Amino acid sequence: MLQTAFTELLGVDHPIVQAPMGGSAGGALAAAVSNGGGLGMIGGGRGDHDWLATELAIAADRTDKPWGIGFLTWAIDSAVIEWSLEQRPAALMLSFGDPTPFVEIVRDADIPLIVQVTNLDDARRALDLGADVVVAQGGEAGGHGGGRSTLPFVPAVVDIAGSVPVLAAGGIADGRGLAAALALGASGALIGTRFQATHEALIPAQVGKAIVDAHGSETERGRVFDIAGGAQWPAEFSSRTVCNAFLERWRGREVELAKDIATQQEYSRSVARGDTDEMAVWAGEAVDLITELHSAAELVPLIVAGAERAIANIRRT
Amino acid sequence: MLQTAFTELLGVDHPIVQAPMGGSAGGALAAAVSNGGGLGMIGGGRGDHDWLATELAIAADRTDKPWGIGFLTWAIDSAVIEWSLEQRPAALMLSFGDPTPFVEIVRDADIPLIVQVTNLDDARRALDLGADVVVAQGGEAGGHGGGRSTLPFVPAVVDIAGSVPVLAAGGIADGRGLAAALALGASGALIGTRFQATHEALIPAQVGKAIVDAHGSETERGRVFDIAGGAQWPAEFSSRTVCNAFLERWRGREVELAKDIATQQEYSRSVARGDTDEMAVWAGEAVDLITELHSAAELVPLIVAGAERAIANIRRT
Repeated sequence: MLQTAFTELLGVDHPIVQAPMGGSAGGALAAAVSNGGGLGMIGGGRGDHDWLATELAIAADRTDKPWGIGFLTWAIDSAVIEWSLEQRPAALMLSFGDPTPFVEIVRDADIPLIVQVTNLDDARRALDLGADVVVAQGGEAGGHGGGRSTLPFVPAVVDIAGSVPVLAAGGIADGRGLAAALALGASGALIGTRFQATHEALIPAQVGKAIVDAHGSETERGRVFDIAGGAQWPAEFSSRTVCNAFLERWRGREVELAKDIATQQEYSRSVARGDTDEMAVWAGEAVDLITELHSAAELVPLIVAGAERAIANIRRT
Repeated sequence: MLQTAFTELLGVDHPIVQAPMGGSAGGALAAAVSNGGGLGMIGGGRGDHDWLATELAIAADRTDKPWGIGFLTWAIDSAVIEWSLEQRPAALMLSFGDPTPFVEIVRDADIPLIVQVTNLDDARRALDLGADVVVAQGGEAGGHGGGRSTLPFVPAVVDIAGSVPVLAAGGIADGRGLAAALALGASGALIGTRFQATHEALIPAQVGKAIVDAHGSETERGRVFDIAGGAQWPAEFSSRTVCNAFLERWRGREVELAKDIATQQEYSRSVARGDTDEMAVWAGEAVDLITELHSAAELVPLIVAGAERAIANIRRT
């Protein structure tokens, strides 16, 4: 067992949080991770009420352990947060953007607030606002993120966080990454891509296969897929995906793509088909370490065992 | 004490290698690191014979401990390597480029060959060639490098390295980073920027101050300074520097800069003056963790103590 300030605060067995990946992290995935002893998170994204209601019911049905909900800070409004807090998640997580407008609502509900940040200024703001947990995310993460790297970024956040638990995110897919996170002074790891490649994630089978097949050097950050999908992300956040035919065709032609309605419509059909040559396959650089699909419930103890082994293997005399 | 396959192979006390930073890692720095129990490295760069002869004599004069020499693989020739091997370094390191033409010479001298790589294909090639140690460098490193990130890249190299020791490089500046490297399965850390910011490094005082003052988010990768300085680096390697006035003026205007001889001449005068607003200050993202200048000799045990503390702080029950 690995105990940290985070496991104590949240009352979970293991210092592993499954990233609230919008759309794919539904109730089944969150419940499986929580049943495995980590903190499962429902990926609320921009706050689609019907989707959330369905997935929250599934999570509540499948586990009695703590689970949380995450949202995109820049895309959410207070009403959805308030409704979500009424469902009594064990934690509410806000990523990408200024959490200021929502802090008081979460505090009033007496539910721990987890704030994910991608640079030191945002980490300072989260701490000043009274975040209960700060996630320091490096740009090697799959999906959206910023420009720092996890290994040097995490200890810099730890140095300003005082007693507030910090989680490391980005580039972590196995027990060695979790052990490294703890060595850096983090109180746990937030893991995305590895949990995306599970039977419980709401992804087409082809996406799971694409993640297993991909290599870290084939992933890259950019804006092409956000533009193709019509997502109005703030300029500071790009997203890391597996390089594919669509990206090869449109990389460097973002302005043109933004005006090309026919291609955008074709893109949404590619997504509907689950065509991994043409759609975004969000994945982090740690895909090198993901060589098979697991069930999320068995993944949590597997990662913990790997972390314990990694730490025990360090020879100190 | 932290023992690894690397410390055993090289006969050093600590799993810390000081990066062979061209020009600034002279004999004084290498000897100080080696006296501290790490492996000091002379930064032979492109192989300037007179500079090397001077610095090798200083190293030999100041320490009886093992030290090594590093070169830029793409810029070196066999004659310099042969001459260097005659000076009997404890290890010879080749970074950036194809080491194939030099492997046999190093092997014939029975001196351990360390090969630094920036992607998995190059790691595979180094292992196939029989490298004795592989350094897996992430792009958060200061100075030249590639596009991977240390945290996910190191375990991927470890997974193909078998019994060959792997060192982690890029983004490591303190004991927590070293502990994380060991947790990832590496046999030690190669550390650059932190040793650049020491009294023994051959740098103008202004550069040391600039590193101490800089933040990780102000460092970035690019080609501007290589172009300004007339360095003919292969396209796959960019370099990470602290953002300054020169970089702000020329970022995105690389083609123009390459033709602007007057600016290039002015640039070399800025370097001669040690003007950190105008010259390259090579520094990695881990500068956030560097808040004062140390002597390199005291830095080695300081980093080791930090690593031991970081590992001991992980609560296992």
